[in-house]
Amino acid sequence: VKIAVDAMGGDHAPSEIVRGAVLAASNDYDIEVILVGREDQIENELAVCSCGKERITIVNTSQVIQMNEHPVSALRRKKDSSIRVAAEMVASGEADALVSMGNTGATMGASLLIIGRIPGISRPALAMPMPTLQEFSLVLDCGATVDCKPSNLLQFAVMGSLYLEKVFGRKNPTVGLLNIGEEKTKGNELVRAAFPLLEGSKLNFVGNIEANELLNGTVDVIVCDGFTGNVILKFAEGFGAGMISMIKDAVMKSPFTKLGGLFLKGAFRSIKKRMDYAEYGGVPLLGVNGVSIIGHGRSNATAVSNAINVAKRAVEWNVVAGIGNNISESGVSDE
Amino acid sequence: VKIAVDAMGGDHAPSEIVRGAVLAASNDYDIEVILVGREDQIENELAVCSCGKERITIVNTSQVIQMNEHPVSALRRKKDSSIRVAAEMVASGEADALVSMGNTGATMGASLLIIGRIPGISRPALAMPMPTLQEFSLVLDCGATVDCKPSNLLQFAVMGSLYLEKVFGRKNPTVGLLNIGEEKTKGNELVRAAFPLLEGSKLNFVGNIEANELLNGTVDVIVCDGFTGNVILKFAEGFGAGMISMIKDAVMKSPFTKLGGLFLKGAFRSIKKRMDYAEYGGVPLLGVNGVSIIGHGRSNATAVSNAINVAKRAVEWNVVAGIGNNISESGVSDE
Repeated sequence: VKIAVDAMGGDHAPSEIVRGAVLAASNDYDIEVILVGREDQIENELAVCSCGKERITIVNTSQVIQMNEHPVSALRRKKDSSIRVAAEMVASGEADALVSMGNTGATMGASLLIIGRIPGISRPALAMPMPTLQEFSLVLDCGATVDCKPSNLLQFAVMGSLYLEKVFGRKNPTVGLLNIGEEKTKGNELVRAAFPLLEGSKLNFVGNIEANELLNGTVDVIVCDGFTGNVILKFAEGFGAGMISMIKDAVMKSPFTKLGGLFLKGAFRSIKKRMDYAEYGGVPLLGVNGVSIIGHGRSNATAVSNAINVAKRAVEWNVVAGIGNNISESGVSDE
Repeated sequence: VKIAVDAMGGDHAPSEIVRGAVLAASNDYDIEVILVGREDQIENELAVCSCGKERITIVNTSQVIQMNEHPVSALRRKKDSSIRVAAEMVASGEADALVSMGNTGATMGASLLIIGRIPGISRPALAMPMPTLQEFSLVLDCGATVDCKPSNLLQFAVMGSLYLEKVFGRKNPTVGLLNIGEEKTKGNELVRAAFPLLEGSKLNFVGNIEANELLNGTVDVIVCDGFTGNVILKFAEGFGAGMISMIKDAVMKSPFTKLGGLFLKGAFRSIKKRMDYAEYGGVPLLGVNGVSIIGHGRSNATAVSNAINVAKRAVEWNVVAGIGNNISESGVSDE
């Protein structure tokens, strides 16, 4: 499986990206990584790595889209940017999948404009694996489609179920509609109209799920519009960080609390790790006619390697074709 | 100030409600509490309390709307329910404010149907004080108006600013629009249309605020539609509880971690208390033509007393008249 990785995207690019690529390729003989970016910089980073470079190639590009650039205009202007070239390789079939830790908007834009949508899918969705007390739930959409129609939510549910089943092996995943009450009459116009569509589908739909239940992990796939999903994603990030900073302050208060903190250091670290979204291997942009995985900007080598592994499984299990067939068979196609 | 308290509403009603009323009335000579509910039950609870019963009266009602009842039909059917009668007392001027820890939908319904809206306000908003690393921010709407127009968000901002300034003494509070990016072009149709309205107002508008910044407390008033606000409110509740349960599990793992937990017990308790929404005295339903404060169902006596104090301040500072004047002067009236 050939995976085009945007070597220039992310807060720690290119070093952590290159290390992550080496890690993934040396642990799995089926992975070939194409690092797309500034060849000299990538070579420098590769020189430090002692092993696992056999299945790594470099495609040189001269431009980089920065994290704070406006996605659409940057994509238009920078024809030789790493993310654009990586997307073009997927579109042409030179690569099987795209992985980027860079500017999310630019990665979404490149995926949609260059690779295109799966026939029948009207809007794409970012499917975020959200840590729970069990394992993780998949929340979609988390920001690709901010204004949704009810049929979009149904398509998100179909795509999310298939992805979770194929890539993570979760059989017949349950689907919940994020809402502000349990009854089907609750919620805003969008979710009230989406409920009967989900209820009438072949999905394992379990009804509405309220946000206070999200962390329990009782439902596998959580469907919502991209505005709400993005708010939740960011709120969880800020909330987790805030709780950790409060605990740190509390630990530093006295010699006794410092001692307590010492005994619990390992425990705190494991909670932090468990709640760290970067551990879950990136967020697929579902609905794109090719595998496109978007990682967190602050991804380290392990997170990059996880994202590459997820991309590989999505390619091997034919997630894109699966979504296409499922959408046309289930009659929820928009075209 | 006469405050009608729904003695039958809440998970711990009537005992904690009665205790909270006694607490509030015995600490503040300006507070008179009218406990509305089953007289015999209220009398029983009052018999236990040793002091502070001078400024407490009882209005007997025969019916109770339970937490799980459908609000509108229950209100229609139960003419002698405690919440209905309490709202009627505010409408007739027999009481200055309404406080209930019961069925939120029924309290909102009774407030809107019986007390009515302030002229010029088209939709009401639940204004939740949300704990932050600083103190608290006011998030509105948290569930009263799930489908919003841009002008609703502007009115929420006007009401929230005024409430925070009058009741909590925060001068010229900053207002932020909850969004999924910083730039004014970001977000869904609703927030994109609301941005210029807020920008053109006399409010201290500071632009968009993303959900990861909410806990930092950098903005005083956060404006959003009631669906998004309710999702955040519930997610924060579930997330806080989930983090606490993870920490508990971690502490129980070994004798060392148990010892660490012992040293940090006080610290954990203070964090839990700080993040407990019940401490902040209930959520006002702004836009109603009278003071209406809705408390959390699991409120204890302290929380009930806090809610009664907030109601008193809202009455004394003329929040309702202030909102009415402000809305008509600022030209954001809908009527």
